[in-house]
Amino acid sequence: MSYQFPDDSCTLHTDAYELSMMQTYWKKGIGQRRAVFEAYFRDMPFKNGYAVFAGLQRVVEYIEQLTFSKSDIEYLRTTNQFDDDFLDYLKDFKFEGSINSAVEGELVFNNEPIIQVDAPLMVGQLIETAILNIINYQTLIATKAARIKSVVGTDPVLEFGSRRAQEMDAAIWGTRAAYIGGFDATSNVRAGKLFNIPISGTHAHALVQAYMNDYDAFMAYAETHRDCVFLVDTFDTLKSGVPNAIRVAKEMGDKINFQGVRIDSGDMAYISKRVREMLDEAGFPDAKVYASNDLDEKTILNLKMQHAKIDVWGVGTKLITAFDQPALGAVYKLVSFENDDGKMIDTIKISSNASKVSTPGKKQVWRITDTGDGKSEGDYITLFDEDPQAQDSIYMFSPDYTYINKTVDNFEARAVLQPIYENGKLTYDLPSLEDIKKGSQARLNLLWDEYKRDLNPQIYPVDLSQNCFDNKMEIINEVRDYVNKLNF
Amino acid sequence: MSYQFPDDSCTLHTDAYELSMMQTYWKKGIGQRRAVFEAYFRDMPFKNGYAVFAGLQRVVEYIEQLTFSKSDIEYLRTTNQFDDDFLDYLKDFKFEGSINSAVEGELVFNNEPIIQVDAPLMVGQLIETAILNIINYQTLIATKAARIKSVVGTDPVLEFGSRRAQEMDAAIWGTRAAYIGGFDATSNVRAGKLFNIPISGTHAHALVQAYMNDYDAFMAYAETHRDCVFLVDTFDTLKSGVPNAIRVAKEMGDKINFQGVRIDSGDMAYISKRVREMLDEAGFPDAKVYASNDLDEKTILNLKMQHAKIDVWGVGTKLITAFDQPALGAVYKLVSFENDDGKMIDTIKISSNASKVSTPGKKQVWRITDTGDGKSEGDYITLFDEDPQAQDSIYMFSPDYTYINKTVDNFEARAVLQPIYENGKLTYDLPSLEDIKKGSQARLNLLWDEYKRDLNPQIYPVDLSQNCFDNKMEIINEVRDYVNKLNF
Repeated sequence: MSYQFPDDSCTLHTDAYELSMMQTYWKKGIGQRRAVFEAYFRDMPFKNGYAVFAGLQRVVEYIEQLTFSKSDIEYLRTTNQFDDDFLDYLKDFKFEGSINSAVEGELVFNNEPIIQVDAPLMVGQLIETAILNIINYQTLIATKAARIKSVVGTDPVLEFGSRRAQEMDAAIWGTRAAYIGGFDATSNVRAGKLFNIPISGTHAHALVQAYMNDYDAFMAYAETHRDCVFLVDTFDTLKSGVPNAIRVAKEMGDKINFQGVRIDSGDMAYISKRVREMLDEAGFPDAKVYASNDLDEKTILNLKMQHAKIDVWGVGTKLITAFDQPALGAVYKLVSFENDDGKMIDTIKISSNASKVSTPGKKQVWRITDTGDGKSEGDYITLFDEDPQAQDSIYMFSPDYTYINKTVDNFEARAVLQPIYENGKLTYDLPSLEDIKKGSQARLNLLWDEYKRDLNPQIYPVDLSQNCFDNKMEIINEVRDYVNKLNF
Repeated sequence: MSYQFPDDSCTLHTDAYELSMMQTYWKKGIGQRRAVFEAYFRDMPFKNGYAVFAGLQRVVEYIEQLTFSKSDIEYLRTTNQFDDDFLDYLKDFKFEGSINSAVEGELVFNNEPIIQVDAPLMVGQLIETAILNIINYQTLIATKAARIKSVVGTDPVLEFGSRRAQEMDAAIWGTRAAYIGGFDATSNVRAGKLFNIPISGTHAHALVQAYMNDYDAFMAYAETHRDCVFLVDTFDTLKSGVPNAIRVAKEMGDKINFQGVRIDSGDMAYISKRVREMLDEAGFPDAKVYASNDLDEKTILNLKMQHAKIDVWGVGTKLITAFDQPALGAVYKLVSFENDDGKMIDTIKISSNASKVSTPGKKQVWRITDTGDGKSEGDYITLFDEDPQAQDSIYMFSPDYTYINKTVDNFEARAVLQPIYENGKLTYDLPSLEDIKKGSQARLNLLWDEYKRDLNPQIYPVDLSQNCFDNKMEIINEVRDYVNKLNF
């Protein structure tokens, strides 16, 4: 037998309806008209006080390969859902337009645009699916990682989830997102190579099983590695694993760097304390206790409350799948479109559920910082051509509860959406992963602690400018008039 | 700016500890010894009565590319965790050994091997992570899809989840798994091309927003497509969307194939009934109502109980992320290893949690079918060289509750694990996706309905042969003796 590797490309990584709409746009002659789409999510993931944006590098990677191959077009022809002249047009399709986006590591909040595509209608439509697919997952995991990091504090925390990730891309891009969110290393070697993330890992139960006893296994490992962390729970943690690890560490002495032991099962609070005592009594006060066993921010907090003696945390399944909320529901909406006269008309999606009504118009998000205490006052969403930096004061109010408001005088306003593509060209210099991570930490420092706690954080203000709010109300009324005047 | 595409390969898609262990095995001269690893999961996903195995094609794709590139080895060198002589050896590494596996679409159960690697120790160790990564996710989604399919019955059910999938691989391999589990089509065009799955999709809210009213948008779509499903909830489903869809359908007449309307928000039970009445009254009794809005088996069952008039179901987030249980916890354990004398010694992983104690020995799983009623009596796990087909009767007993037992006389025994690789070569002819799907359905027909209900199904028996059970008890006692004789 031989395996035929498929002829694959990511240009077709889109929903069929995007291509169906493109055919309509193209045939009706409106495909090249300027359209602005914005992606945003409606609810904070994990009810966290903030989200950590991630996925931009992958979006760039996707955009950079965006051309229909011959086999892509032949495949589309076989579906009998597309016309030949439209398929001919696709041969020359290329990315045009501009993308503004939050940068990776940026803190983002619900109901504000996090990525904005200002491009010919057909282009903006095609790339919806992949953009959402990418940023929904990576932002979710960066945020989950930040929650976990907030609980472990300065302890090292390692990403161990590849085997439980939702397929291969999730394993590698998820661990990159986790690194942005505050993790220190990954077990995934491919992610190490691709993203220069430190890799971490020593041995599994199989090594001990192969030798049929802890001592021989640890000794074999020690004889073939300088840095040693022994996994001690294959047969019996306290009776065999830890005493044998200590025995090997003593016998090998300076020949190895005995970093500690890892426990992967049992009552972690009790066992870790006993292990700590055993290591200390044996003269290894610097040896660390590594723990890994279905951990997340809740179990880690609980273990810390019980004064578990754990120094290094390995987190797998619960992080890499965002187990308690495995999807971020970001959507991608048309907010403005060029009319027959070449004028941009703002558009809306109405819903009987108030929170699902989109906010029309091309917008910018401004992070407002009090120049006195240096802390964030909230985010202020304006129409794109407004410049709050030119104002002396900002009147900030909740778009849902307008009687909740404040006026901010001494402030700095920083634009959250940054240019990534301009007129079809990548103009953004993708930063190093280290810089992304540091940038995220710096931004977190500007948030009051009340927004950062894991449970029931304060709600961070995400407000609309008066212009943006008035524009929305006006368009809601226009749609209401349209519907009411219908005569069926 | 230009984007530098990374030099990527999946050979490094492994946990660092696999490579660390390989270094030990290689340096200690045991890396080429024969080892048998088996993957299994401990708990049924979603508390379902069965799981649908998927992922084998992707495993083959992974194995077929398994070589360390020059840049892989150079990367490993930069980590300072590996010795030069070991890295030199990796240059010539290739897959050796055999793999037996459940075939895709097979029904599998907890605590039975679903994939088995019989290979040199180093080889079996390296491929652990990727195999688990692949089969954990795809089996999870195929099973979730089967649950949903069991509720929709003969209604068409479409996979719409790409934008919420956990990165790109999950979108495409997840929808393939969903197809195996009983779904009829996907929105993901790339998955359509790669796997020949029918693609489905018409238009989104953006089309209606671009035209600023339903009528013009539907008309534009109708003028550019033969098959039409109109999305009716952009502004107002009952006042604008549906009446305008009907108007366009009447005006276009035979020029289009008016397949129906899609609703994506609101009270689906109430709205679908009203939409059905409107379509019927307008003379379109064959037009279908498509629904999509955070559906899963629970909401679909509920809508059916309320006699919602929905004909076609689009399922996204809840399926593609397996929202209520986003990870299957399959593990991969060393069950047998060649000793110094060239004899295979069965191995075990002990745990204080009884259900986590692994079952030693290379095994086979037999599906036992009553030749009278043609229904499955349960699965019977034997040591690999046992042949229940040669027996007149089988004594089946629960390995946990041995007083629950039965003797089966008139039976057929079918081996679940099939040869995929033999001596390093792919010997299995990968079937078409259609055949996989049909095979899965045929296997489901052999299960009593009591195992197939979504809620609180009967527990399907997964029993050990007496030899297999006795072997496990003997090795548990050996380990207990080993631990008790330690003298610390």
